Amino acid sequence: MKEIVTVLKTGGNVIDHPEVLDAVLQDFALWTTKRIFVHGGGKIADRLMKQLGMEPKMTGGRRITDRQTLDIVTMVYAGLINKNIVAKLQQHGCNAIGLSGADADVIPAVRRPVGEVDYGFVGDVNAQNIRTEQLGKMLDTGLTPVMAPITHDGQGTLLNTNADTIASSVAIALSQRYEVHLVFCFEKNGVLRNPSDDNSVIDVLDETHFRQYKNKGIITAGMIPKLENAFDALHSGVAEIRICSPEGIKNGGTKILKFPE
Amino acid sequence: MKEIVTVLKTGGNVIDHPEVLDAVLQDFALWTTKRIFVHGGGKIADRLMKQLGMEPKMTGGRRITDRQTLDIVTMVYAGLINKNIVAKLQQHGCNAIGLSGADADVIPAVRRPVGEVDYGFVGDVNAQNIRTEQLGKMLDTGLTPVMAPITHDGQGTLLNTNADTIASSVAIALSQRYEVHLVFCFEKNGVLRNPSDDNSVIDVLDETHFRQYKNKGIITAGMIPKLENAFDALHSGVAEIRICSPEGIKNGGTKILKFPE
Repeated sequence: MKEIVTVLKTGGNVIDHPEVLDAVLQDFALWTTKRIFVHGGGKIADRLMKQLGMEPKMTGGRRITDRQTLDIVTMVYAGLINKNIVAKLQQHGCNAIGLSGADADVIPAVRRPVGEVDYGFVGDVNAQNIRTEQLGKMLDTGLTPVMAPITHDGQGTLLNTNADTIASSVAIALSQRYEVHLVFCFEKNGVLRNPSDDNSVIDVLDETHFRQYKNKGIITAGMIPKLENAFDALHSGVAEIRICSPEGIKNGGTKILKFPE
Repeated sequence: MKEIVTVLKTGGNVIDHPEVLDAVLQDFALWTTKRIFVHGGGKIADRLMKQLGMEPKMTGGRRITDRQTLDIVTMVYAGLINKNIVAKLQQHGCNAIGLSGADADVIPAVRRPVGEVDYGFVGDVNAQNIRTEQLGKMLDTGLTPVMAPITHDGQGTLLNTNADTIASSVAIALSQRYEVHLVFCFEKNGVLRNPSDDNSVIDVLDETHFRQYKNKGIITAGMIPKLENAFDALHSGVAEIRICSPEGIKNGGTKILKFPE
């Protein structure tokens, strides 16, 4: 039987509220499975850019990353947010180690080719290239990786990479060696039947029901790519996926299944 | 016989010149001994502070680190500079891993007590507390640590720490397991007989001659604490110390010895 590794991804809305983040970190530090923390942090980067007179550029929810923006996200994600999370986890007795994808070459990436949009210094990740042996060594020696959404191209250039993509790619890659549980922690209580009612959480969602809810327009907008990615991850070997709020990180939220239970 | 580990510390003046830094990194990447890279980065932090309308505060060459300044140095040292160095070393085939002192708890520190000056979030390091086993594990698995001058207090707070102190403390700590060679790379060619003549390098300097030069006023100012620290490190187990320019990192500069050769 494979050992369990839990990959917890926390989004910008959690990172932006120190008291919420701290509660998540305290809880996470107490988990007894091997585990990896993946964080985003968009809003802090936006604030710093505005303070410096720069204008954040987004298209389709993705950041256009020119050279100056790359420096900002490198500072904010891999520096400020990552190291503060590591220090807090250390405080709570969890031997955390902060990593960008360049560190120990854990996540090699490819700069996104210019198509209709030039995203600039944005990296795409292939789960097959992730250094699972290196991450495995860290996990096996009691370290807990804390991963910032920054990767590199192997040619000396850092790349801005979507944190959800990092979390699911790492989860898929580690599924070769471990039973991987992937948890997406964000501001809602889970996948909702009614986006304006936070109590309308769908407890369990399999792919057939997801397609039905999607066709009926019950699940919409930003949740669709999140769930498409989740089903891709399940088809690629991830054992279990949950989408939940900070209060539900242990067992709450929506459990995503390939097939009905 | 102990295996050799080389600790290379590069100062702010090297970090500030991308082409000089890149030449150092290319050279460092080719070294065949186990090795650790320690970097500072003061001027980039100063520039960012000024862009944000903050006024860098220094006393006796040391930075007063209030909460906002701590965020800046965490971003610049542990994020921007550290991750770019790691990406460049990866490009040159060196499997680098960037670390603050909080990562894997490698450098626990103590916040400097308030005396005549309140330095704010500044950390003092005791070589005995450095996690040599953790650093040893990384070195033994082929990783090259790249250390930013940021530590932590174990209570969730990051601390700004002098990069020279990090380099010599790590060198002292690792001397238990390895034969440690410590190299300080800065803007001058070495310890100079005449500060205005860059060709007046003292090739070899032992402690007796250092005291004589100091008493005669030949060695002055900023070089004195650097050399006092160097002799402390030699007395604490470090095998060899050199002070040199980027061009001399392999064999040039001033060799510091406990006793005359």
